[in-house]
Amino acid sequence: MNITLKQAEALIEKAKSKAVELDTKMNISIVDAGANQVAFVRMDGAWLGSADIALKKAKTARFFDMPSGEIGKISQPGESLFNIEHSNGGLITFPGGLPLKNKDGEIIGAVGVSGSTVENDHAVASAAAQAM
Amino acid sequence: MNITLKQAEALIEKAKSKAVELDTKMNISIVDAGANQVAFVRMDGAWLGSADIALKKAKTARFFDMPSGEIGKISQPGESLFNIEHSNGGLITFPGGLPLKNKDGEIIGAVGVSGSTVENDHAVASAAAQAM
Amino acid sequence: MNITLKQAEALIEKAKSKAVELDTKMNISIVDAGANQVAFVRMDGAWLGSADIALKKAKTARFFDMPSGEIGKISQPGESLFNIEHSNGGLITFPGGLPLKNKDGEIIGAVGVSGSTVENDHAVASAAAQAM
Amino acid sequence: MNITLKQAEALIEKAKSKAVELDTKMNISIVDAGANQVAFVRMDGAWLGSADIALKKAKTARFFDMPSGEIGKISQPGESLFNIEHSNGGLITFPGGLPLKNKDGEIIGAVGVSGSTVENDHAVASAAAQAM
Repeated sequence: MNITLKQAEALIEKAKSKAVELDTKMNISIVDAGANQVAFVRMDGAWLGSADIALKKAKTARFFDMPSGEIGKISQPGESLFNIEHSNGGLITFPGGLPLKNKDGEIIGAVGVSGSTVENDHAVASAAAQAM
Repeated sequence: MNITLKQAEALIEKAKSKAVELDTKMNISIVDAGANQVAFVRMDGAWLGSADIALKKAKTARFFDMPSGEIGKISQPGESLFNIEHSNGGLITFPGGLPLKNKDGEIIGAVGVSGSTVENDHAVASAAAQAM
Repeated sequence: MNITLKQAEALIEKAKSKAVELDTKMNISIVDAGANQVAFVRMDGAWLGSADIALKKAKTARFFDMPSGEIGKISQPGESLFNIEHSNGGLITFPGGLPLKNKDGEIIGAVGVSGSTVENDHAVASAAAQAM
Repeated sequence: MNITLKQAEALIEKAKSKAVELDTKMNISIVDAGANQVAFVRMDGAWLGSADIALKKAKTARFFDMPSGEIGKISQPGESLFNIEHSNGGLITFPGGLPLKNKDGEIIGAVGVSGSTVENDHAVASAAAQAM
């Protein structure tokens, strides 16, 4: 049970449309069930530093099968997973990473989006996730 | 002078078509003039380990403005650039990486392909580079 | 649209003059539009550990097209980009990194300065950025 | 006993002049007695991938107090230091790195040059080293 490239490309198109609608320029990454990247695009003029962040958000979402921002809530000082970001070659734990599920609810990958506010990043990732 | 996402996506389609024609499954990476990744796809069933190789081939081709395989010829034991692969966080110096030039002959990025024999990798990268 | 070495060297001279004026010893790094280093100097007696920080500040400013310190404000515990520093091989998000713009307002690189208080680092980076 | 920034900048000017004379575009790095970078320039249009190589050549020359190419001779397959390049975060052991000595013959740093053939790289590094 793994996302296909065709599915990933369709999600990226959805994400790009949402990014344009929000007047933003995004980096968009899709990983599969094994947390390995399937497809990536950087929109013209999008932040260079957001490419790695988009990938790390997608990996983080699949590593723990939850939205990246959920991990960020419990990685704060004093919380149970403080500084979990040091694992796995670097996690990104603010919003913009979401697991991707098939019709049966099985996780088949994840999407990560970076290039604007975390609210916009999350909105674009959600547009992709909901298109599954 | 930088490749656009639209151009990168068109090259990836060309590369995918060539990969299908050769009955191969490829990882295809496009970087811009600054050697930063613009777009990437991994075809269904393509080797997982070839994603990083495709990116490193593209970076290598842009880092030195020549086909990755040209560097490999002179990085052999006893040759002038032996073990250059230890630089830049890891180079890949066998064929499959090619600079991308615009109509004026300026280098605006590079393509890297990995997933089959180096002959096939090079053929798919060439299909992309010639489509510029 | 990329900074030239001649421009970078002129900026470094401005930065060094400002550093002397402030009675500080600085590491000064200039990167181009692709976030690749163009020029670097470490003033005699400047902190050894600040060389990498100067480069990472310059890269951070170009990665996100804003002063490095702006990112630091929103990467604090509880803020929206907490622990973004784990991306891109390590960001530095306190002041001292600034984008460099040409006359048309296009970003053509960035400067990073480290070696004293963040106020002094920022003052020296500003002296360089304003000399563009 | 350490190279000063003023000395390093003078050597870089010598190296740039030699690079122009040879019709090449070079990356030039100077490290101090502690193998820490003092100054660096990338000439306009020089290979992006040669920045890291120039630094690694300079570090290699100071790490072992001999020309980088001397190490390359004994790091070949079957030789005594085979694959020493895996140490120290990556060595570069072909020509282009040279120790820098003061009048008393003490090593006070090293120069590394990359951007052309190893013969040209070595010639530009030599021009710098002889200017001490």
